[in-house]
Amino acid sequence: MSFASDNDAGVHPAALAAIAAANVGAAPAYGGDELSARLDERMRALLGVPARTLATLNGTGTNVMAVQLVARPGDGVICAERSHLAVDEAGAPERIAGVKLLTVPTSDGKLTPELAATRYERIGVIHAVRPRMLSVAQPTELGTVYAPAELRALADWAHERDLLLHVDGARLANAAVALDVGLGELIADAGVDLLSFGGTKGGLLGAEALVLLAGGLDETAERLRKQSLQLAAKTRFVSAQLLAYVEGDLWWRNAAHANAMARRLGDAVAAAPGVAIDQAVETNAVFATLPPGAADRLAQRWRVVRWDERRRLVRWMCAWDTQPDDVDRLAGDVAAACAGLASSTSDATPDRRISRGR
Amino acid sequence: MSFASDNDAGVHPAALAAIAAANVGAAPAYGGDELSARLDERMRALLGVPARTLATLNGTGTNVMAVQLVARPGDGVICAERSHLAVDEAGAPERIAGVKLLTVPTSDGKLTPELAATRYERIGVIHAVRPRMLSVAQPTELGTVYAPAELRALADWAHERDLLLHVDGARLANAAVALDVGLGELIADAGVDLLSFGGTKGGLLGAEALVLLAGGLDETAERLRKQSLQLAAKTRFVSAQLLAYVEGDLWWRNAAHANAMARRLGDAVAAAPGVAIDQAVETNAVFATLPPGAADRLAQRWRVVRWDERRRLVRWMCAWDTQPDDVDRLAGDVAAACAGLASSTSDATPDRRISRGR
Amino acid sequence: MSFASDNDAGVHPAALAAIAAANVGAAPAYGGDELSARLDERMRALLGVPARTLATLNGTGTNVMAVQLVARPGDGVICAERSHLAVDEAGAPERIAGVKLLTVPTSDGKLTPELAATRYERIGVIHAVRPRMLSVAQPTELGTVYAPAELRALADWAHERDLLLHVDGARLANAAVALDVGLGELIADAGVDLLSFGGTKGGLLGAEALVLLAGGLDETAERLRKQSLQLAAKTRFVSAQLLAYVEGDLWWRNAAHANAMARRLGDAVAAAPGVAIDQAVETNAVFATLPPGAADRLAQRWRVVRWDERRRLVRWMCAWDTQPDDVDRLAGDVAAACAGLASSTSDATPDRRISRGR
Amino acid sequence: MSFASDNDAGVHPAALAAIAAANVGAAPAYGGDELSARLDERMRALLGVPARTLATLNGTGTNVMAVQLVARPGDGVICAERSHLAVDEAGAPERIAGVKLLTVPTSDGKLTPELAATRYERIGVIHAVRPRMLSVAQPTELGTVYAPAELRALADWAHERDLLLHVDGARLANAAVALDVGLGELIADAGVDLLSFGGTKGGLLGAEALVLLAGGLDETAERLRKQSLQLAAKTRFVSAQLLAYVEGDLWWRNAAHANAMARRLGDAVAAAPGVAIDQAVETNAVFATLPPGAADRLAQRWRVVRWDERRRLVRWMCAWDTQPDDVDRLAGDVAAACAGLASSTSDATPDRRISRGR
Repeated sequence: MSFASDNDAGVHPAALAAIAAANVGAAPAYGGDELSARLDERMRALLGVPARTLATLNGTGTNVMAVQLVARPGDGVICAERSHLAVDEAGAPERIAGVKLLTVPTSDGKLTPELAATRYERIGVIHAVRPRMLSVAQPTELGTVYAPAELRALADWAHERDLLLHVDGARLANAAVALDVGLGELIADAGVDLLSFGGTKGGLLGAEALVLLAGGLDETAERLRKQSLQLAAKTRFVSAQLLAYVEGDLWWRNAAHANAMARRLGDAVAAAPGVAIDQAVETNAVFATLPPGAADRLAQRWRVVRWDERRRLVRWMCAWDTQPDDVDRLAGDVAAACAGLASSTSDATPDRRISRGR
Repeated sequence: MSFASDNDAGVHPAALAAIAAANVGAAPAYGGDELSARLDERMRALLGVPARTLATLNGTGTNVMAVQLVARPGDGVICAERSHLAVDEAGAPERIAGVKLLTVPTSDGKLTPELAATRYERIGVIHAVRPRMLSVAQPTELGTVYAPAELRALADWAHERDLLLHVDGARLANAAVALDVGLGELIADAGVDLLSFGGTKGGLLGAEALVLLAGGLDETAERLRKQSLQLAAKTRFVSAQLLAYVEGDLWWRNAAHANAMARRLGDAVAAAPGVAIDQAVETNAVFATLPPGAADRLAQRWRVVRWDERRRLVRWMCAWDTQPDDVDRLAGDVAAACAGLASSTSDATPDRRISRGR
Repeated sequence: MSFASDNDAGVHPAALAAIAAANVGAAPAYGGDELSARLDERMRALLGVPARTLATLNGTGTNVMAVQLVARPGDGVICAERSHLAVDEAGAPERIAGVKLLTVPTSDGKLTPELAATRYERIGVIHAVRPRMLSVAQPTELGTVYAPAELRALADWAHERDLLLHVDGARLANAAVALDVGLGELIADAGVDLLSFGGTKGGLLGAEALVLLAGGLDETAERLRKQSLQLAAKTRFVSAQLLAYVEGDLWWRNAAHANAMARRLGDAVAAAPGVAIDQAVETNAVFATLPPGAADRLAQRWRVVRWDERRRLVRWMCAWDTQPDDVDRLAGDVAAACAGLASSTSDATPDRRISRGR
Repeated sequence: MSFASDNDAGVHPAALAAIAAANVGAAPAYGGDELSARLDERMRALLGVPARTLATLNGTGTNVMAVQLVARPGDGVICAERSHLAVDEAGAPERIAGVKLLTVPTSDGKLTPELAATRYERIGVIHAVRPRMLSVAQPTELGTVYAPAELRALADWAHERDLLLHVDGARLANAAVALDVGLGELIADAGVDLLSFGGTKGGLLGAEALVLLAGGLDETAERLRKQSLQLAAKTRFVSAQLLAYVEGDLWWRNAAHANAMARRLGDAVAAAPGVAIDQAVETNAVFATLPPGAADRLAQRWRVVRWDERRRLVRWMCAWDTQPDDVDRLAGDVAAACAGLASSTSDATPDRRISRGR
């Protein structure tokens, strides 16, 4: 069992069953199949607006597609300094979409209109890129969550300035559960224009989707999916996974379970000597600072993601298949690793460097 | 049943079984899993050389990765005018790899040193791109096959001029079967430097691989896989498919079956009135010209890929799951559609325009 | 004296005088100066339409800017196979604008709606780029000229298909003189959407301009000029050159002289033994095939541009400063070089390869 | 007269004279001329090492060329947060070179190995770009200067990590004068690998150069200059300007004058009520904070560059043609504008936002 990444988890049996069920006879390749059409309809129903949903292959590709659909040469994208877009996509937004990321430091991973405004500047100056998109993650890389009203405020701020709002929802289900709201309220009502909707971290084999809510974007979206290397030849099997995820409540159940396991873990390690929880445990991530030396001890038994070495900050992720026993075992090992070590009250200045993985 | 694309086919049960078998507990995400390491080893054994194999998500992405690994700003890639790289990748090589394709017209889809030499020109001229890669498909988009000696001649020609040889092997298994040679003779002995190895068309759900045979390429290959949007989060399930494909003889059996079905289809339609086989049926594709009006009649019952409308050229693809009964039914319908129509001996000049799909 | 390129020529004294006259005190850098505003107005007057003119640094950069303003990811540009855009810009359109060029072979360098239509294909097919711009050169790389009605027909064809028409006018003045029409009739009335307006080959030090005639393009044009590396810090000196060129008749006079010199040269060499004029001498270029061995002899005294070695085709360019004596001297040397050699009636098949320089 | 930008200045008469002197007869276009060869030699002599010098068109293009020569897909460039590369090139490094800039906040514009090290991180992590170049400006955007030993330390740090050191020397002459060292000591001895050498701000019409000191870079440099839109057709006139600049002491004299004018201005405004000099006046820039309201008053008579509005920080640039009378007039107007206003001791937090222009 692993707490290093929710992508270390396997595939939910329902997703495999859906793949097997789709494996009947021939179907038009490259997205022309019936399951893809059904997915499109289902997402419309969930969102309550006439969106367009395109099944894609991975999260980075989906985000890059979103950027390419919106940003023209000379445009920029405002995002958080530690966002996945900025630090964990190997420079794909710059290389493939040709865009400058206008990053904003944040303490909890969340942007606000005030923070975004610090990079909305020099408008009309020909030496500067023009911000054209505001991209936020829901939940953030730090596991924190935007309330719908917070997203709404960002959307309003963006739209008043002719920017579109993109949500990187690689773990969107975990945010929905945390807020106890559906996709309509979470996304459509909040004024989101483009959504990278994640399924892989939620228990699928490999299935994401780009959801276009704003008008005028989809004329070229299908060709762009191909050009952006995000088109599966046998798309029916990607759409089948996503349908299994969202036609019933699998997306919700898996996220609810992962979130509950993270709470259980957070509560348990918070009691360990010298451990301090670093970010509110709102979804399926637990960030905690450990006493000096504890991470090394723990690494003898677990793969440890050291998020910020200077602060001795580590990250644990729970997944759809995390078991309470595993949580308890990890918590026990954490407590043991910390035993007898100095307090974790780090005297190091916060590390503004970037995260270690997603 | 469909003869429009071998990607209309489903997934071989062995691939689904391999996915299910890999779905046990946690495994490091992003390619650090044991199955990926095993795939790397297995490909080395098949090739007989110390190659590096990286599981990828689709053929276009794999080809673009290959180009990016080799071509620097100012470089170009020599390829056939109707190659997939040139006409069926929605401009991804130009957009993502930033490379100019130096295309060469061919009658049978195959390049020769003489043909390649027509685009190896203006060397040292600063206004022209410098050819840095020769990219050929094995088999070609027209289903034709390079003999190992032909590939060897291309590799020698390329290496003498400081170019690398890339093979787009989206259907490589079909060529191997046609030639009755293994990967070592087909690829490594022939001097190929980079191989896009396809599995999806051969019966997998969605699994390709970039195989690096030349030295000095792999230092950045893993980071480039991520940046090129070709890294699956749960890579173990991609590698598992490829292992199922190449650890035994699945890749060979599936291709042998598809090739046999294409021969059966080619033989049958060749006997239809006014039909002329257009390219040697060496792998799993059948290209034929039909009498005027026949394609329209046939389209009432089958999805027809009109490869070149002016020549009334159509393409049929057979797949791992094509059944003899389906072949016979299609052949019968072709004969019926052609009955009573004028001969297909097209008086139109050959259409140098591009293909209609892969 | 050189006939290798009209860019081997120097600078007309009036351009140097204009630079000196502009060198008074301070002026806002980066295009905010008065001369740039005056250039914008003057071009509007010449064109007779509310165009926007931006002074730029070189022809390749101006063409790339035009492409970037129009083409989105997934789009393509239709152009002639031997166009400067396709063969003499070192792959900049692909690398910087990320666009695929959809090239069309031509015998005289000119496109027609029928020829363009051969690459307007597979519309709506997600595997293919969408043609979004038709780019033609006036005059062409072969020195031939489109009549205004021919450009009009191309514009109409393009607009009916939602393409814009771009004219690469690196030598536009030479075409205007050849046709004896002004810019209004030549460009605006013909329905051209974007114009790369050349001044350098016409006698300036280094000054081109991108002229936007179609609406909706200029919102981002200035920022794009900066991003596309085409913004001079001291733009006033670029605009000053262009004003010297078009406020009076310098552009016309220089082109008229160069065209006359080319006619003189064409007439003279046509009389040389075994020489055949290859393209109509309509502007300032002379293309001729020479007897075997003649180019080598000539190369002992002149820099010879061998346009197509297989056909023994050479190119001579005349410039604003070409002197009749130089023409006569070259023609004499050509005649001498050809004396006693076999006829130039080339038995070689036409070389579809690309040009040797501009 | 303008203190808004040293690019608002005109052209030194010696540069115009050099252009006129170069305007004799024909010369090979595209960089093949004798003056370009002479420039190459002269720069070697100045640097004392076998460098390669290519005349270019503007500073942004020169910087982008440098990045493209070094950075491969997946690579990044470490630079200061307020560097011209990061904030004043309209996103060209990201768009054209496809590179992520790894920016570092600095108080005085200068990097140190310690600061650079904060972005040399996650080496070997496939989700992150690999730093491949360290780019610093000499002098910095804030007019501050690196001592040769400081550059040497950066070069050593970079080379130990397989990075190359690039210097953006748009105003390099001003730094040389400030340090009283020649190019050999300033650049070659310090271990710089690539230099963007500026001439335009130093009094030329429009002439920069990319200087390659590290080996192995120049094989493709000329083709890249063309592809990067930095090749002048009539390069002789660009090289002629640079020769006029560096064959004698024009580069030094112009910079010495501009620096002296900046010192005069800095000394004078420092005495104005409520004005505080913000950065050491080492070259030709003066940064100062003004009392509230002063900038608005001053803007009635001068174009005021408000570098950081929250801190009431303004920037004045002196140029080769700045006159003492103009300096005194500006200083007088500053004093008058500040009279009777509150102290400039800004209580605002430093603005980490980006500069307003170069």
